[in-house]
Amino acid sequence: MAKFALRKMRRKGLPSMSAQTVESRTSTENPSDSAGTSVDLGPASGLSCRECGQRFELGPIFACELCFGPLEVAYDLPLGDPEALRKQIEAGPENIWRYAPLLPVPADVADKPNLNPGFTKLVKAENLARELGVESGKLFVKDDSGNPTHSFKDRVVAQALEAARAFGFTTLSCSSTGNLAGAVGAAAARAGFRSCVFIPHDLEQGKVVMAAVYGGELVGIEGNYDDVNRFCSELIGDPLGEGWGFVNVNLRPYYGEGSKTLAYEICEQLGWRLPDQLVIPIASGSQLTKIDKGLQELIKLGLVEDKPYKIFGAQAEGCSPVSTAFKAGHDVVRPQKPDTIAKSLAIGNPADGPYVLDIARRTGGAVEDVNDEQIVDAIKLLARTEGIFAETAGGVTVGVTKKLIEAGLLDPTLTTVVLNTGDGLKTLDAVAATSQATATIRPSLDAFRDAGLAH
Amino acid sequence: MAKFALRKMRRKGLPSMSAQTVESRTSTENPSDSAGTSVDLGPASGLSCRECGQRFELGPIFACELCFGPLEVAYDLPLGDPEALRKQIEAGPENIWRYAPLLPVPADVADKPNLNPGFTKLVKAENLARELGVESGKLFVKDDSGNPTHSFKDRVVAQALEAARAFGFTTLSCSSTGNLAGAVGAAAARAGFRSCVFIPHDLEQGKVVMAAVYGGELVGIEGNYDDVNRFCSELIGDPLGEGWGFVNVNLRPYYGEGSKTLAYEICEQLGWRLPDQLVIPIASGSQLTKIDKGLQELIKLGLVEDKPYKIFGAQAEGCSPVSTAFKAGHDVVRPQKPDTIAKSLAIGNPADGPYVLDIARRTGGAVEDVNDEQIVDAIKLLARTEGIFAETAGGVTVGVTKKLIEAGLLDPTLTTVVLNTGDGLKTLDAVAATSQATATIRPSLDAFRDAGLAH
Ligand SMILES: Cc1ncc(COP(=O)(O)O)c(C=O)c1O
Ligand SMILES: Cc1ncc(COP(=O)(O)O)c(C=O)c1O
Ligand SMILES: [Zn+2]
Ligand SMILES: [Zn+2]
Repeated sequence: MAKFALRKMRRKGLPSMSAQTVESRTSTENPSDSAGTSVDLGPASGLSCRECGQRFELGPIFACELCFGPLEVAYDLPLGDPEALRKQIEAGPENIWRYAPLLPVPADVADKPNLNPGFTKLVKAENLARELGVESGKLFVKDDSGNPTHSFKDRVVAQALEAARAFGFTTLSCSSTGNLAGAVGAAAARAGFRSCVFIPHDLEQGKVVMAAVYGGELVGIEGNYDDVNRFCSELIGDPLGEGWGFVNVNLRPYYGEGSKTLAYEICEQLGWRLPDQLVIPIASGSQLTKIDKGLQELIKLGLVEDKPYKIFGAQAEGCSPVSTAFKAGHDVVRPQKPDTIAKSLAIGNPADGPYVLDIARRTGGAVEDVNDEQIVDAIKLLARTEGIFAETAGGVTVGVTKKLIEAGLLDPTLTTVVLNTGDGLKTLDAVAATSQATATIRPSLDAFRDAGLAH
Repeated sequence: MAKFALRKMRRKGLPSMSAQTVESRTSTENPSDSAGTSVDLGPASGLSCRECGQRFELGPIFACELCFGPLEVAYDLPLGDPEALRKQIEAGPENIWRYAPLLPVPADVADKPNLNPGFTKLVKAENLARELGVESGKLFVKDDSGNPTHSFKDRVVAQALEAARAFGFTTLSCSSTGNLAGAVGAAAARAGFRSCVFIPHDLEQGKVVMAAVYGGELVGIEGNYDDVNRFCSELIGDPLGEGWGFVNVNLRPYYGEGSKTLAYEICEQLGWRLPDQLVIPIASGSQLTKIDKGLQELIKLGLVEDKPYKIFGAQAEGCSPVSTAFKAGHDVVRPQKPDTIAKSLAIGNPADGPYVLDIARRTGGAVEDVNDEQIVDAIKLLARTEGIFAETAGGVTVGVTKKLIEAGLLDPTLTTVVLNTGDGLKTLDAVAATSQATATIRPSLDAFRDAGLAH
């Protein structure tokens, strides 16, 4: 029943076009008519509905025509010889394309112009562990600020770009809370696509300038992210948006797969072992959901031992629809109006919220939130312990980790990976007030002595 | 004669302490007295004067007691079996420590807490090549914005940190034009050092906040970089600065070696081949000088074929002491008072200026400069062609590359590597005025249609 309500909510947002597209894709009488058959996206064999399991051919569609559930990429995975697969991966490039056999991309993807994100550092965080009371050697930060545009969004955009190439789109678009805008702008520039991205008009300066500097169109929308997203859903059903690949709308099934690479990398960097606990930020919930999918695939492929792991979701208190639902024991996520400094996570109506709830509950994890002050404290804690300057989203995961340990929900004796998915340089305002010069002095020893800074 | 004038200039800036230290280090009667003998910095066998060749033991010294020339690290390099060395490097970690056998660091450096910078992307820049008239497949951007604190400075700080550990310092310090401050702050935090860094008081907000967020002391100096540097030279000779490792003063010989890793990586990423031409930014000139040193070592080690290459230096017109000297045919660099948006390169009195002139002339290169408008245009050119958002220093190298091609000084048919040494997020103001949303609209199709952005 709860699920049915959700489906109806989703249905309202659906553009008319997509249902038609689904129809033509599912017609088996005349397969040569459909883009699906001529498309080479490597091991991707089709799309399947996350709700009812219905299969569809590969195409720029994202919702099931039967039940309006979200579509996911289905694969012919290279099962059977885990050792050979592991060797193939390890011999691949030091970026996400080492996992091309597990992604919806053609085999020669590494030769095409794209930003080659991924294989970011998994930092053993001994200083942070000490401060949080985690056992030595057990705490890691997966630092995705090392990606080309300094957020994990380069991973998902890289997949959507290949899908856009395959489906013949020439314009890349998206609705964005900030990071995605820069990632799409940069990838489009390098790959020779036109781009037109949509953001809430009041984002951080760093995100706005970065999104604009690559030379594509950047449109500020008077409203919050949920307004932007609704607008994009309309646009995609209108002739105005024809031929546009919206990475997180009509290319969303492909886009989402990019987050699986975080799961792959974390396990490979741990020596092909699953972590015991992961702390992952939630905006739409796509990333968390797909990391779980990636972990499940590794188990299925025999690349890691099948053992339990717990997934913890992290939100900002000022936009906590999923943690609110988790704590209340609901499986419907009630939309909120966001008000938080963690703007990249400010999605009040998260598309994958219910799946996040499922995963947190199934794995024995939790969803927790921290307030703006705790976010700032956590950014500074991570910076002064590990030399990693995270954006507000990283403050959310570190802050939630601390809170979960204090609450006894996260076991400090187990291997734990905390995600930092973005870069502090994009959210300077969060810490600017409290991160300035200790003193400003004349260039003289006397002035320095007077400032009292000598030890 | 010119060199003598320079030496006198250098002498004036020398703290009294360093000459004494040199004395104790050069005494061979009682070697166990000296820190040099117990110090393990891997293949580093001592220091040698770049001017007169005098040798010194390893220690926190930077100027020759005989001639006041700058000291460089001397090595017992692993000559003899290039194939074995190449294999060892390729089996190493994907960061600068793969080159540990060629750096002044202990063999187990990768196990110590540091930021593990390096092995950043060498991007084949086909779109940029087309715009600049460079032959297809010949233009590359070495993108050091992928380093942990998003500039090449992480490379040099990582070396200085190991030297600081070896010499028993507990405070890391520096004078900085901005990027170095962040790199020192972050490295010190992770390695458990206290830090105190000095910057001109009027730097970009991104650089100030980043330098402060790691929790060390950050001191703004009322003056420009040359004032900051002079102040640090005084501080190092005063009891106030005792026990401090100034990465670019008393640890400068070690620090500088970090830039060799750019040479190593570029050649390895080109398939163990020397590029024909390199375009490198100049502030103090250390980086350019050490990249040349790195290339020479690779030739000596037999890791690359011995063939000519040309090194081009790049400055901002508003701080162009080296390009001015180059064009005038001088080998003395006359100090300037900087006035440019390329604040990271705003060193009016560059310590290694004369060596840069030597190298540009010896290799058949040149030193050129571009004005602020050209810097901004070049930042945007690189962004819209390759999806790389560079800081002003990257605008300087790309702009100079364009200018050198137009002047016929840089051959567009040869393999050329242009360095981007920093990140656009740290110098937002340079492009903010011209990189904003194309339009801001209500979330409606009509508003979008009226904005005229649909294609
Ligand atoms: C830095 C950062 N982290 C995490 C997220 C969460 O992404 P998702 O929508 O997949 O939950 C976002 C989304 O914009 C983001 O920008
Ligand atoms: C981004 C950037 N590029 C290049 C340089 C030049 O460094 P060097 O002093 O070694 O010439 C600096 C120095 O601060 C820098 O910050
Ligand atoms: Zn369905
Ligand atoms: Zn000398």
